Amino acid sequence: MKLYNYWRSSSSYRVRLALHYKQLAYEYVPVSLIKGEQHQEPHRAKSPAGYVPVLEVEERGVIAHVSQSIAIFEYLEERYPERPLLPRSFVQRGHVRALAELVNSGIQPFHNLSTLNHVKSIGGDEKKWAAHFIDQGLAALEKQAKAHAGVFLFGDTFSWADCCLLPQLFGARRFGGNVDAFPLLTRVEQTCLELPFVKAARPEAQPDAQP
Amino acid sequence: MKLYNYWRSSSSYRVRLALHYKQLAYEYVPVSLIKGEQHQEPHRAKSPAGYVPVLEVEERGVIAHVSQSIAIFEYLEERYPERPLLPRSFVQRGHVRALAELVNSGIQPFHNLSTLNHVKSIGGDEKKWAAHFIDQGLAALEKQAKAHAGVFLFGDTFSWADCCLLPQLFGARRFGGNVDAFPLLTRVEQTCLELPFVKAARPEAQPDAQP
Repeated sequence: MKLYNYWRSSSSYRVRLALHYKQLAYEYVPVSLIKGEQHQEPHRAKSPAGYVPVLEVEERGVIAHVSQSIAIFEYLEERYPERPLLPRSFVQRGHVRALAELVNSGIQPFHNLSTLNHVKSIGGDEKKWAAHFIDQGLAALEKQAKAHAGVFLFGDTFSWADCCLLPQLFGARRFGGNVDAFPLLTRVEQTCLELPFVKAARPEAQPDAQP
Repeated sequence: MKLYNYWRSSSSYRVRLALHYKQLAYEYVPVSLIKGEQHQEPHRAKSPAGYVPVLEVEERGVIAHVSQSIAIFEYLEERYPERPLLPRSFVQRGHVRALAELVNSGIQPFHNLSTLNHVKSIGGDEKKWAAHFIDQGLAALEKQAKAHAGVFLFGDTFSWADCCLLPQLFGARRFGGNVDAFPLLTRVEQTCLELPFVKAARPEAQPDAQP
């Protein structure tokens, strides 16, 4: 497998966490969002919409490209069910996916590069904008997580919800969110950051990382 | 099952389409977003983050609540695999989920009520804001869909991608998106709107619909 991705991209980091947790080998291919490579060939052939991450896979001798972190995650979970990132019960799987969604559709879209550029273009303050949505979204996540949190965001097993949490808190700090207001989320983060597979997936550990 | 939802909510409409396609009976419980009922008890007990839709289910005698349309969809697909909304191959499932994501995290978050209120509060024009993100997102969806579209958005079988497309085009018209610029999307929409199960799931057909 090849992962076309960018060290600091939140959704790229989610997928790296899933790959490292599952102990799946992959080739890292950097796509620079700063240089706009996601909108150019050859990347456009893999992702017509122009996004990272994209996972390149080979199934029955045919090369295919799966885009969008949620779709890549579900692909990995179905294709490589060993070391699962979802619990077994139908309802618990729903709870983990709901936590992930509070990040995926509830926070991240509001602070990606194209959104912040648009906020600036209409005269808004992009830092204040990002902090507003991050703080609002993390508050919802902290509330929603309380009922089932354990060592990790859902129970005592690392899950897809944690794969979404870590990049979101990384992004929150970049964009000035008030991370310290969320004791449950930061406590889970601290636990996760000690794990070797998490260290390997972190933005700073990637070959295209910048100081 | 009970579906706590709102007639005009985009993510509620997605879940209704899935339920009707799968021919699953459910009780419709309206939650008025206009009155703010999603933030009040008793709804907060079902969705601490304060969202619709929420699916109430009973598993082994225990009542549980699954929130977030993506999580509810995956629950329904796993729990009731008859009349599937995803293809069978791993890669094709990835493609359908990626199309759904272009709507779920790529468009809808930008025109929900709380986003538009915030845009207004910083002096932005919420109609122009919504139209910008809708047009940009639908353009990405039209491009991404081209490779695999058939009668429906992915191939010749109704899928979860169509469940996300229909509410998005409904929302696009409400918010002044330029829907006519997307011939593939509108052609698929016209096909879908003739289907009886789609008619049953449409906003206008719900008990809490307003003129």
